[in-house]
Amino acid sequence: MIAEIVSVGTELLLGQIVNTNSTYISQRLAELGIDVYFQSCVGDNLLRLQSVVLQALSRSDIVIVTGGLGPTDDDLTVSAVAGVLNRELVFSQEVLADIERYFSKTGRQAPETNVKQAYVIEDCNIIRNKIGTAPGQIVEDSGKVIVLLPGVPREMTWMMETSVIPYLKEKRLAGSGVISSRVVRVVGIGESALVEELDDIMSTQTNPTIAPIAHDGLIDLRITAKAPDQVSADRMLSDVARKLEGRLGELIYGYDNDRLAEVVGHLLAERRLSLALAESCTGGLLGQLITSIPGSSEYFLGGVVAYSNESKMKLLGVRDQVLASYGAVSRQTAIAMASGVRNLFDASVAVSVTGLAGPGGGTATKPVGLVFIAVICNSLVAVGKFLFNGDRDQVRHRTAVAALNLLRKSLLASGTAKG
Amino acid sequence: MIAEIVSVGTELLLGQIVNTNSTYISQRLAELGIDVYFQSCVGDNLLRLQSVVLQALSRSDIVIVTGGLGPTDDDLTVSAVAGVLNRELVFSQEVLADIERYFSKTGRQAPETNVKQAYVIEDCNIIRNKIGTAPGQIVEDSGKVIVLLPGVPREMTWMMETSVIPYLKEKRLAGSGVISSRVVRVVGIGESALVEELDDIMSTQTNPTIAPIAHDGLIDLRITAKAPDQVSADRMLSDVARKLEGRLGELIYGYDNDRLAEVVGHLLAERRLSLALAESCTGGLLGQLITSIPGSSEYFLGGVVAYSNESKMKLLGVRDQVLASYGAVSRQTAIAMASGVRNLFDASVAVSVTGLAGPGGGTATKPVGLVFIAVICNSLVAVGKFLFNGDRDQVRHRTAVAALNLLRKSLLASGTAKG
Repeated sequence: MIAEIVSVGTELLLGQIVNTNSTYISQRLAELGIDVYFQSCVGDNLLRLQSVVLQALSRSDIVIVTGGLGPTDDDLTVSAVAGVLNRELVFSQEVLADIERYFSKTGRQAPETNVKQAYVIEDCNIIRNKIGTAPGQIVEDSGKVIVLLPGVPREMTWMMETSVIPYLKEKRLAGSGVISSRVVRVVGIGESALVEELDDIMSTQTNPTIAPIAHDGLIDLRITAKAPDQVSADRMLSDVARKLEGRLGELIYGYDNDRLAEVVGHLLAERRLSLALAESCTGGLLGQLITSIPGSSEYFLGGVVAYSNESKMKLLGVRDQVLASYGAVSRQTAIAMASGVRNLFDASVAVSVTGLAGPGGGTATKPVGLVFIAVICNSLVAVGKFLFNGDRDQVRHRTAVAALNLLRKSLLASGTAKG
Repeated sequence: MIAEIVSVGTELLLGQIVNTNSTYISQRLAELGIDVYFQSCVGDNLLRLQSVVLQALSRSDIVIVTGGLGPTDDDLTVSAVAGVLNRELVFSQEVLADIERYFSKTGRQAPETNVKQAYVIEDCNIIRNKIGTAPGQIVEDSGKVIVLLPGVPREMTWMMETSVIPYLKEKRLAGSGVISSRVVRVVGIGESALVEELDDIMSTQTNPTIAPIAHDGLIDLRITAKAPDQVSADRMLSDVARKLEGRLGELIYGYDNDRLAEVVGHLLAERRLSLALAESCTGGLLGQLITSIPGSSEYFLGGVVAYSNESKMKLLGVRDQVLASYGAVSRQTAIAMASGVRNLFDASVAVSVTGLAGPGGGTATKPVGLVFIAVICNSLVAVGKFLFNGDRDQVRHRTAVAALNLLRKSLLASGTAKG
């Protein structure tokens, strides 16, 4: 099976947005063993759009078109594809009801223009849209499959996962072998150091392959296996994962879609510990990560963002003298902040962060990127001193990741779950 | 002049890397007034690569090919294009010297395989590579221009800036005019409602065009003008921007790269007001956005993340009775939280947020997505009630955006800057 991806939108041709849709769809199709030979991108122009779709149908079995399903006159994908296939557009009462429901949830009426989105290609399989207004469509025609998806990445990926991939599997359009991946997630080591550490494994390993992707202090090791069936692929993936576990130990915080804040949340929940945060340079980012996990209210009590020295003293009880002798960005202030917030919320565990995110404010002894993190967990106090590279955003993100990791390591060191 | 961009590389078709090269080249060509009608992407396969180049030459005047210039057997772009143009490859002593110099800088010898990169298409203009090994090539053929560039983004952009763009200008292949954009940034209205509001302007407006892009409660209106020169383009953009200002008024929070938190920061700074935050469901996100702006310590004192009812009472002084009678997610609690945090930090302005981000915890009267936001600014109290669609992440992001916007509107209403 050969697939082709067609992205529609003049904003792509003007370079106003990056085409991440093609990347994502290609990746998912590769995992299904479906070859992609071409990706094409065309603007909001009927004739050119039709010529690209026509060509895609002439050289590929599956054509996935994204974009151009919106309510405006610029959105031409549905009528263009209907024209190429010589099919009519038909009105779907069901889609209109979905659109009206979407707007009514927020107390609005569906605008007149959105009615256009209830017209679909005749005899298509409608993919109902629960998070937007444009329905997806799957059309079978002369042994080919044409899939229309919205250009909004969230809506597109949701339809791929819940409808298109199950459809391709059910129709046995997926390849005979499988390409399967597992991600081993690592924190607390730089990318170069990790690659060096794993050099002997990575250089001899061809199937499965191991590819590192680093982002903001976290590294994903993606293991990809080609195998005749899923059972063999799983076994190959497990073998490599075990090798990595033996080598990396506690540097591995999770697998696949595990998030660091989620892993930390599990550790807190199973130990029945409560958490409070005192943030300075991260300004709330750490709290945002902790509370991005559904159910975090089970262990997270709250936090203080103490941006000024005054608030560090008044709210967290950091003594004037500590700030004067050591400065706001110091080991001593970090410990005092953690201790203060633990008392304030009566929490069992507290994390504090104080540092210089920049761009301004750095000195020779306390440069931009200098960060102290303290964790108080039962009777244990752990303090980390870090010097992060990067701009303000990167320093803040890396700080939050390092704080979550220091918390994770403290929780692991504090023993196993309590009954 | 019509240009087409061809990206070569199986890693693109496998979704292993995002195609940012096409985005960058498209953007630069648009700025030169050169239309891009198509972008294509093909793998490391001779016949398919040749078919894509052949087609590009048949429908475009300028074809820019990136990728496939490396030293391995997989790298086929040079021989593929030579084949299509029916030209020989010729050895360039100059390029070989560049390659040898590149390796010798790091004390290495040029590997045998890299010698391949010294073969170029006959009668091409060589673009020498000072930061890598593959030379770029510009070939003129039957009135068309074919440009070959490395796939490595750093090398590609460097050659575009230093050689290709100057070449296109010198040969007068750049459009006689310019394409220029301005972004008008809008908050506080849904995309459909905005499009309806602007329908008469947008439907009659062909040059400049107006295109809306929505993300998490913010909408960018991108105005794009084609004009003979930059001065006329600027005038056209200003005319449309003024029309939008007349229609949208305070729904516009900024232009181009302005960020909402930055605009709010300016308003606070110029009014010499200080800010404190009380967050519940956003868990620190609002503080993170406020402190993402360099220099925010000038006006931001800090905040409390009061995730539990207890912390709302103990830290923010929300009375037991208010929580019991109206619940944590209520107008009354929002006002009490803002008032409490204002006192705690002795701030002139306070913002509070309380809501249900989900996925659990919703009831018939208080569904997931229900959010109350309060702003206390001098003697003014503003409270907003919102019902947001989407998952936990979206509800939280939209809440933070709505809070920043309510703060912005309160600051605007509180009068102009104090001397």
